[in-house]
Amino acid sequence: MTLSGQVWGDGPAASANPDVFLTPWKDFRPPSGPFEDHTGAVFDGVKRVFVGRPLHSDRMEGTLLPKRVALAVFCSDPISSVAYATEQILLVLAAGGLAALATAPWVALAVILLLVTVVASYRQTCYAYPNGGGAYVVSRENLGEAASLAAAAALLVDYVMTVAVSVTSGVVAVTSAIPALSPHAVIIAVGLIVLLTVANLRGTRESGRVFAVPTYAFVGLTLLMFVWAGVRAFTGGLPEAVTAADPLPQPGQLTSLALLILVVRAFASGCTALTGVEAISNGVPSFERPKARNAATTLAMMGVIAVVLFGGITVLAVAMHAQALPDGNPSVISQIAAAVFGGSSVVFYLFQAATAAILILAANTAFNGFPGLASILARDSYLPRQLHNRGDRLVFSNGVVLLAAAAAALIIGFDANIDRLIQLYIVGVFTSFTLSQFGMVKHWQTLLRRHPEQGTPDTVTGTSGIGGGTRRSMRRSQAINAIGAVFTAVVLVVVFATKVTHGAWIAVAAMIVLFLTMRSINRYYTRVTIEVAADDEELQTLPSRVHALVLVSRLHRPAMQALALARGLRPDVISAVTLAVDADETRLLRQEWESRGIPVQLTMLEAPYRDPIRPLINYVKDLRRGNPRTVIMVVIPEYVVTHWWQQILHNQSALRFKARLLFTPGVVVVSVPYHLGVGEEGWMGRRRREPEPEPEIM
Amino acid sequence: MTLSGQVWGDGPAASANPDVFLTPWKDFRPPSGPFEDHTGAVFDGVKRVFVGRPLHSDRMEGTLLPKRVALAVFCSDPISSVAYATEQILLVLAAGGLAALATAPWVALAVILLLVTVVASYRQTCYAYPNGGGAYVVSRENLGEAASLAAAAALLVDYVMTVAVSVTSGVVAVTSAIPALSPHAVIIAVGLIVLLTVANLRGTRESGRVFAVPTYAFVGLTLLMFVWAGVRAFTGGLPEAVTAADPLPQPGQLTSLALLILVVRAFASGCTALTGVEAISNGVPSFERPKARNAATTLAMMGVIAVVLFGGITVLAVAMHAQALPDGNPSVISQIAAAVFGGSSVVFYLFQAATAAILILAANTAFNGFPGLASILARDSYLPRQLHNRGDRLVFSNGVVLLAAAAAALIIGFDANIDRLIQLYIVGVFTSFTLSQFGMVKHWQTLLRRHPEQGTPDTVTGTSGIGGGTRRSMRRSQAINAIGAVFTAVVLVVVFATKVTHGAWIAVAAMIVLFLTMRSINRYYTRVTIEVAADDEELQTLPSRVHALVLVSRLHRPAMQALALARGLRPDVISAVTLAVDADETRLLRQEWESRGIPVQLTMLEAPYRDPIRPLINYVKDLRRGNPRTVIMVVIPEYVVTHWWQQILHNQSALRFKARLLFTPGVVVVSVPYHLGVGEEGWMGRRRREPEPEPEIM
Repeated sequence: MTLSGQVWGDGPAASANPDVFLTPWKDFRPPSGPFEDHTGAVFDGVKRVFVGRPLHSDRMEGTLLPKRVALAVFCSDPISSVAYATEQILLVLAAGGLAALATAPWVALAVILLLVTVVASYRQTCYAYPNGGGAYVVSRENLGEAASLAAAAALLVDYVMTVAVSVTSGVVAVTSAIPALSPHAVIIAVGLIVLLTVANLRGTRESGRVFAVPTYAFVGLTLLMFVWAGVRAFTGGLPEAVTAADPLPQPGQLTSLALLILVVRAFASGCTALTGVEAISNGVPSFERPKARNAATTLAMMGVIAVVLFGGITVLAVAMHAQALPDGNPSVISQIAAAVFGGSSVVFYLFQAATAAILILAANTAFNGFPGLASILARDSYLPRQLHNRGDRLVFSNGVVLLAAAAAALIIGFDANIDRLIQLYIVGVFTSFTLSQFGMVKHWQTLLRRHPEQGTPDTVTGTSGIGGGTRRSMRRSQAINAIGAVFTAVVLVVVFATKVTHGAWIAVAAMIVLFLTMRSINRYYTRVTIEVAADDEELQTLPSRVHALVLVSRLHRPAMQALALARGLRPDVISAVTLAVDADETRLLRQEWESRGIPVQLTMLEAPYRDPIRPLINYVKDLRRGNPRTVIMVVIPEYVVTHWWQQILHNQSALRFKARLLFTPGVVVVSVPYHLGVGEEGWMGRRRREPEPEPEIM
Repeated sequence: MTLSGQVWGDGPAASANPDVFLTPWKDFRPPSGPFEDHTGAVFDGVKRVFVGRPLHSDRMEGTLLPKRVALAVFCSDPISSVAYATEQILLVLAAGGLAALATAPWVALAVILLLVTVVASYRQTCYAYPNGGGAYVVSRENLGEAASLAAAAALLVDYVMTVAVSVTSGVVAVTSAIPALSPHAVIIAVGLIVLLTVANLRGTRESGRVFAVPTYAFVGLTLLMFVWAGVRAFTGGLPEAVTAADPLPQPGQLTSLALLILVVRAFASGCTALTGVEAISNGVPSFERPKARNAATTLAMMGVIAVVLFGGITVLAVAMHAQALPDGNPSVISQIAAAVFGGSSVVFYLFQAATAAILILAANTAFNGFPGLASILARDSYLPRQLHNRGDRLVFSNGVVLLAAAAAALIIGFDANIDRLIQLYIVGVFTSFTLSQFGMVKHWQTLLRRHPEQGTPDTVTGTSGIGGGTRRSMRRSQAINAIGAVFTAVVLVVVFATKVTHGAWIAVAAMIVLFLTMRSINRYYTRVTIEVAADDEELQTLPSRVHALVLVSRLHRPAMQALALARGLRPDVISAVTLAVDADETRLLRQEWESRGIPVQLTMLEAPYRDPIRPLINYVKDLRRGNPRTVIMVVIPEYVVTHWWQQILHNQSALRFKARLLFTPGVVVVSVPYHLGVGEEGWMGRRRREPEPEPEIM
């Protein structure tokens, strides 16, 4: 990789024979060396404590996840959503009285059917897109820009909702066990988001380990609850839930239509059980090899766990006559646990703790997904570039912080009310599901058209996965995805129709705004790309004339240093300017200039309104008038102090000059720092000892 | 003044014959031209509305004041303080019951005697220091640095107190008439300070006119009140004040010592009548010519008015048995006015309005004094230089804003409680009085020693003022100042002793902190002056070698422009560096660099921790190792956008590079802006139309 060569400008040969000169340079010093500025050092110290030492880019591979960890990292969202999905169904059906509540098992069955379909559908995606097949990528490749941006907008909104809803539900699990904490729900929720943010800024692998414990604890304890309930059902009879005796609404005789509407609305609410299913298909590259197979297997495991838990909880809720309360406190799942384990038993509190933990950590799915998607969108020029930068710990830090801020704002804005928040949630989920599944149908179609003959496994799906990638297996995959697409499209319509007036319009509006913003950003970047594209000719377009203009306020060492540098640069023209704001000081400078015989022309710009910047800019514009290819190089001497408070004792005029000159075309600013207190290190070696009467600070 | 000459660098003669080249340049454009950056334009627009158009420095002379305006500008403070001085005396004496209250006229007489002495004393200062003889200037010239800084600290604290106390008293006058406004006192007071700040930022002369009306209205209405009261006393008898029948404290038999202490404390409180007397001696340069004589005359007028008003109000208060209330609401002066004019008469409300107005505007004395003194202290290197800048309207804007902020903080901190605030007040006043008078005694002593013979008027006092400046008149002046010095010194001791435990310690502590801060600032500036003093040799100390280092991330036009500029500058060495954060981008850049055959060495700095700045700084330090007189000129291409929000779409890495490189010794930063959307105006003329696939934004 090393191509050593002559340095340009060192000898006459350089311009005559323009060879290619490329050298790599490697720094072996540790990344946290001493800082020159104290402010930087303090900030760096604080960051180290919370985020940890920077990681080397080589350690990217080290963040790959084994299946058992991946299940916890990617599936805490769909698994944890069983904690509130049953409750959402019961809450809607309760309005229809006993007759409506009787349909609850059937509604739950429909949700389970949908879940199985979607899981099966996404398993196809894992094989087809081993580099990550999120809804955005699949739509972009198969359905075009508009669909992909719609999917991306839906996903981004959904990730924010996942954090807000999961954390809020987690707090409800805590307040169900400890009611005294209820008034502080918002503060607790925001505090948890901060903790999650810090954990995620430290990196994926470490947070994966943290998250494995509560996920498996929740699954284990729920299964234990099922067994325990089964034993009690056979021995002494199943206990009733604490709300079993509460009066039900008596809506009179329900019409069939009204009942149907209720059932459909309950189904739409139950679909929250599906949120987060797509996370694994997005995260295939994070899996250990073979990535696609491991991902598909993990997805199937997740599906089995979710179906068992959701089904079991619904059965118990119906059998124990648990009722959903409007404020969600205590939650249905906690009523069941309290009845089965005993409301003051240790196991009950353990169960509540595990529920709270998995719900809060479910937000982690979004902390993996959002920054990753934002980074892809940034790479594709749909979001600001900064979202594509990996931070000290190899995560996309800006995305993590952005997600946390948006979710915290949402929780504060909705006062941590879970039932209002959840209304905004699943429109986005099913938008991306639908687009993704239709994209997959198209994907198989394209592949089938491209390979009319029996394809080899590897060229078709990029893996040696199940089905062998033959035309038959492709058709089977396409069929699965088609079913998924139709199912999710229907559910999207249902969800939209039943929820848009209950708050989902906010989520829809956010998606539209995001969609339009991303398109505008892309157009802006494209315009810039066109504008800044360079060709070979431009390499020769040197400025026709460089005029160095040294800003001088008094003849002190910083000014001398700036003059010396300007002379050392040998520009075509060199002159000095001073802004005549104070008549006495200008006279003094003029006298000293004359008596020292400085061989540079000094122009005194009158500044009768005492603003030094505007006359300078007008003067510079005058100099360039008629010579558009002249470059004015404004040389500004600048004090650099050793302590931040010393900054107060110096005018900030250098900073103001630089800021305003940046906007003046044809001007290049050279700032020549003078380091107070470390004068020896500059190129002007000695320090003097004799004082002068009046210091001038610029 | 024009010395036209050859520009250095234009011909070979320049360095051989170092003539002096000095040219003035005058810009005839209006000061509010178009802005290149939108943020600047918005800020400028807002400023114009509140502060007005910038004034030309030539209009400094235009702000001179005739006597009748000067009286209002400088004397609203001492004249208005009669509105609360009597009340402060009565408040203290009331604790001693009837026996103590009987001494009130004698206490008032003592205050009047002191007032006359101080006025006479300051008249000498007006003649001796026609360029302004504030306590700081007089102490500095005659008593040395420590005394002058003590005086300055006292004055600065006092100006802040003047604003806080006057505005708060003015609000009390309002709430005495309209009690419903009492709960909003703090907000009203802060609002008034904001109004005063804006008025003063617009300039002295305009505010002088505004302030003449209430001052003369207050004086006229108070005299009318005296006449009216006199007429009623002779016709039907003087009415009683509303509080006349309130029960007095019955302290039993007072010992003589206790009575004496009460009387002394009452005297100390009554001395608030003297605050602001020094303002005229400070403001002599603002008077119309002959400045010293006009100032002395105005001071005498002020003395007469203050004595008449203070004496009259005290006589009426005693005669009408008005009592001071602990919360100061209604005030003694408003009780008298209500009784004399009738509590619901139009004249009473007019009187209250005039009282409120003059009290609030008394703060204007401080708005004249504080910024002026701060500017002198800044000129003398005791305060930050920014306080010496005149703003758009020729006033020292930074000082105005600083004063307003400090006073507002004080009012908020003390909850607009006048009786607590006033305790902090007069220690500072008498500190500066005493130092100033002792300084004057020393001044005359010095003059008498220097002129053992009969001096001519002009050489001795700089004026042809009263007394003719003979040795006899000098001795007379010295005697007057000596009496003033002894009186004020005694009062200072009394005031300190009686008030230090009542809150004055805060003012004393503030003075000590200010004193130490000003000394530290002076030492810092002196150290800097010594460090930056340049001699002729240094003019020849050119950098031994300039190494231009162009930062490149991709070969777009901004980078090309930066490379072209660097080549146009013909440094000793030129090379390019790129930070290898993203492996793909680095490979792309390398390929393009090779294929275009760019004749500059490209070094790829590895940035394995993805922070691009530290490797660059380490690289630069490596380049300079062993060559301390080599200057590394880092050339940074920079995007400049047309709308502020576009900034979000570009990495701020240029800004971060510049900020960190500023602290690296031996480095000079050249920022080469590329103006997006106005490419034609740069020195690289054309724009291209063909898009490139992937824009890279730095």
